[in-house]
Amino acid sequence: MTQSRLDKLTASLRTSSLDAVVLNPGPTLKYLTNLNFHLMERPVVLFIAPGRDPVIVLPELEMPKVDLFPYKVQAFAYGEIPSEWDNAFRSAAQALGLDGKRIGVEPRQMRLLEFRHVKAGAPEADYPDAADILAGLRLRKDKAEVDAMRHAVKIAQDALTATIPLIKIGMTEKELSGELVMQLLRHGSEPEMPFAPIVSGGPNSANPHASPTERKLQAGDLLVVDWGAAYDSYISDLTRTFAVGEVDAEYAKIHKIVQEANAAGRAAAQPGVPCANVDKAAREVIEKSGYGAYFTHRTGHGIGMEGHEDPYMRGDNMQILEPGMAFTVEPGIYLPNRNGVRIEDNVVITEDGADCLSDMPREIKVVG
Amino acid sequence: MTQSRLDKLTASLRTSSLDAVVLNPGPTLKYLTNLNFHLMERPVVLFIAPGRDPVIVLPELEMPKVDLFPYKVQAFAYGEIPSEWDNAFRSAAQALGLDGKRIGVEPRQMRLLEFRHVKAGAPEADYPDAADILAGLRLRKDKAEVDAMRHAVKIAQDALTATIPLIKIGMTEKELSGELVMQLLRHGSEPEMPFAPIVSGGPNSANPHASPTERKLQAGDLLVVDWGAAYDSYISDLTRTFAVGEVDAEYAKIHKIVQEANAAGRAAAQPGVPCANVDKAAREVIEKSGYGAYFTHRTGHGIGMEGHEDPYMRGDNMQILEPGMAFTVEPGIYLPNRNGVRIEDNVVITEDGADCLSDMPREIKVVG
Repeated sequence: MTQSRLDKLTASLRTSSLDAVVLNPGPTLKYLTNLNFHLMERPVVLFIAPGRDPVIVLPELEMPKVDLFPYKVQAFAYGEIPSEWDNAFRSAAQALGLDGKRIGVEPRQMRLLEFRHVKAGAPEADYPDAADILAGLRLRKDKAEVDAMRHAVKIAQDALTATIPLIKIGMTEKELSGELVMQLLRHGSEPEMPFAPIVSGGPNSANPHASPTERKLQAGDLLVVDWGAAYDSYISDLTRTFAVGEVDAEYAKIHKIVQEANAAGRAAAQPGVPCANVDKAAREVIEKSGYGAYFTHRTGHGIGMEGHEDPYMRGDNMQILEPGMAFTVEPGIYLPNRNGVRIEDNVVITEDGADCLSDMPREIKVVG
Repeated sequence: MTQSRLDKLTASLRTSSLDAVVLNPGPTLKYLTNLNFHLMERPVVLFIAPGRDPVIVLPELEMPKVDLFPYKVQAFAYGEIPSEWDNAFRSAAQALGLDGKRIGVEPRQMRLLEFRHVKAGAPEADYPDAADILAGLRLRKDKAEVDAMRHAVKIAQDALTATIPLIKIGMTEKELSGELVMQLLRHGSEPEMPFAPIVSGGPNSANPHASPTERKLQAGDLLVVDWGAAYDSYISDLTRTFAVGEVDAEYAKIHKIVQEANAAGRAAAQPGVPCANVDKAAREVIEKSGYGAYFTHRTGHGIGMEGHEDPYMRGDNMQILEPGMAFTVEPGIYLPNRNGVRIEDNVVITEDGADCLSDMPREIKVVG
């Protein structure tokens, strides 16, 4: 599996203007090796150049992982003295004759830590952005990947279903978040979660990227829960919004509008249309209702091994949806300093439409 | 608190060769703002220059966080279209007059994603490594920080104590890791854990950076558990090694040696001596026993808001230990393809010695 992924990458490198790519720990490295390397203060990078064995630079204490590689790699290990690390990077670049060449990078993943060592090893190389080629590799999920995502959705839904009866007025956002994480683990999520759940009530729910606080749930709050599970390196990312006791009529109204926008976004998801269509379909519902100014983000993002990846459901994105592309549909309305609503599902494009992996009820539900 | 931290940073910038620093989401940004920003595909950076209000560049949907800043900041927000983001970075650099100046960066934290936008905003600036100045800010923990770390140690110890009776032969590493995470949450860890626990048995324990697998615990295994909790943004990072049933005499022997090395490392930790002393004290015990070649990493790393931070307990590190410095002491012996041992504690330097925050028994304990 990883061999064919590597072959696919080297094939696309051959038709590109790049001589190689260099990867550091993250989803693309995991996708191509099925190994777990962590981002840490000791840099790890893998150089991939067509027609050559990949070359890895890593700390000596990680050497046992080299034997686990699914294909032959050449390894250059360094010891614990940082001032000596550049030597290993220089040897790696020389082994592949990369100095002066075009080495593609993944800007969202690579840190200046790795980059400055890579550059010390190949100072005359160019380092163009290879995000498109690398994201393209993981863009169309195969059946095994979709199955893993479906399972990650099921774990997440089962976990929230088990958590809902435990929600009580007076509970803090942090407490509820901790309970939900326990339920995610109990239902089979991998311990390394895709992200810490967002649990935000009342005014905090009007901040799309809130972190759980010590604020206690109060009657009249909207409660946004944005959570996900990890299974076999693939993740889910869902959101539902609840009413804590009885809520203001306007809050019930915006919940209904967002629910309609979510349905419209999902209905627009099909092969052959641009990503923009999904965004437009959801946004139109909210704009027509007069709340357009309060839907402050794009409608969705790709999902797979990463929480946010290609393709993005933005109004300017004319990228065409193809079978296997997986993404979120998550419109929202956020009334500043008051309350907010978001409803998020995970969708995969099929040959003739789309498969929504999540099916937990979207209607407003009273909790507490 | 954050104001005085900011003042401390600007004071050290004034005596440095830097005109400013630029930070992206991570521990230093959290330390200086007490706000949670996440690393994502939308870049967020904060510029700090002495004598000026800090300047933040962020996506529009994060604007609610600007009101939460503990001091005045000037914000430049961008929308959802990536090709327009550079404008916000340019305006930010202009507001502080930074083009052509020296802007310090944190290479371990900053990605090429942020860096390339920052550079587009100030193309003529230099970007020297400011890791020392920034790490120096967080190097000596104050009482509140040590208290939070002590609490994070207590949560971790209580969680493992509750998990030990559940360890059974036939359980997989992943199952045990999931159980331990649940106990960490139940005992009060923040949901955003410092790292996923390492639970590695038998041959996997010989890999210092193993990830939990589907391998089942077997009688005769050594079982390494490397785990930690997060409390109020501060973390703990501990390791204990267990015997699953009866183990080979050599494994019991290396456990005893590592225990002695750990004690020697802790005893060497005191103010006024170089970090190297801690490494040497632990390493000497292992070398004298003939296993020196199997202790493949430094003896410890700093700890605080980050899992690994300054100061590092390495043989070449002549940095002098000072009161408030906090770090791990974690010698190990790893017999390749056989079994491994590591014993890790968290230590804080005091005025006249060191305070070991962790006190869970270190003796080999039979589980299963």
